[in-house]
Amino acid sequence: MDITNIKFNDLGLVPAIVQDYATRQVLMMAWMNEEALKLTIETKKATFYSRSRQKLWIKGETSGNIQTVVTLDYDCDGDTLLIQVIPAGPACHTGNTSCFYRNLVSNEDLATGNIEILGNLQSLIADR
Amino acid sequence: MDITNIKFNDLGLVPAIVQDYATRQVLMMAWMNEEALKLTIETKKATFYSRSRQKLWIKGETSGNIQTVVTLDYDCDGDTLLIQVIPAGPACHTGNTSCFYRNLVSNEDLATGNIEILGNLQSLIADR
Repeated sequence: MDITNIKFNDLGLVPAIVQDYATRQVLMMAWMNEEALKLTIETKKATFYSRSRQKLWIKGETSGNIQTVVTLDYDCDGDTLLIQVIPAGPACHTGNTSCFYRNLVSNEDLATGNIEILGNLQSLIADR
Repeated sequence: MDITNIKFNDLGLVPAIVQDYATRQVLMMAWMNEEALKLTIETKKATFYSRSRQKLWIKGETSGNIQTVVTLDYDCDGDTLLIQVIPAGPACHTGNTSCFYRNLVSNEDLATGNIEILGNLQSLIADR
């Protein structure tokens, strides 16, 4: 383990993607500073740095929904982490399993190409 | 689809996690500005903003390893995107399927608690 492989940004932070080890669902993304990363490794409990509260937070410390770390990888640039965890409960404060519970574009629209069709119709109407 | 749900950071960027739709492997993380996000939606080809080159890049434009977008979700805070894609080839410029091909901590160490044991031994030796 060589933490010097990790490039923290200007604010001393690195993004950490959290994935469910069993289901492979992506649960959330949060930021770690060096201390949060070291604590995550030592305790095996996903620990982050809150940019809004400007302090460390152990995920699930309040809710009980601790995330136990199973794997901890870093990317080719060394500027993003991927941790696979066993979560004790939902990752999201809304009660959803994952924080990514909303489509920005509906999957049907992506699949059928309705976006282009609607865009074309819009242009057609605008032209008239 | 309401792009105003997305909170771009001070630099006008939002991180986008890219996951393989079929295998659920997390492939990479890159940044999008508003134009990159709109192009991703319109073309269904994952398109990012390169912070180093300060320009848009269509993933796979040079290598051929295009990523076709199947789902596009955003998180509870609206400040991170998750896109599931069908990749035409490896995501990483190293040729690896995923950019996350290296352990920061070996999975065995995480599983067996060797980290704590080694840490304790180190303290013990330092004390003598």
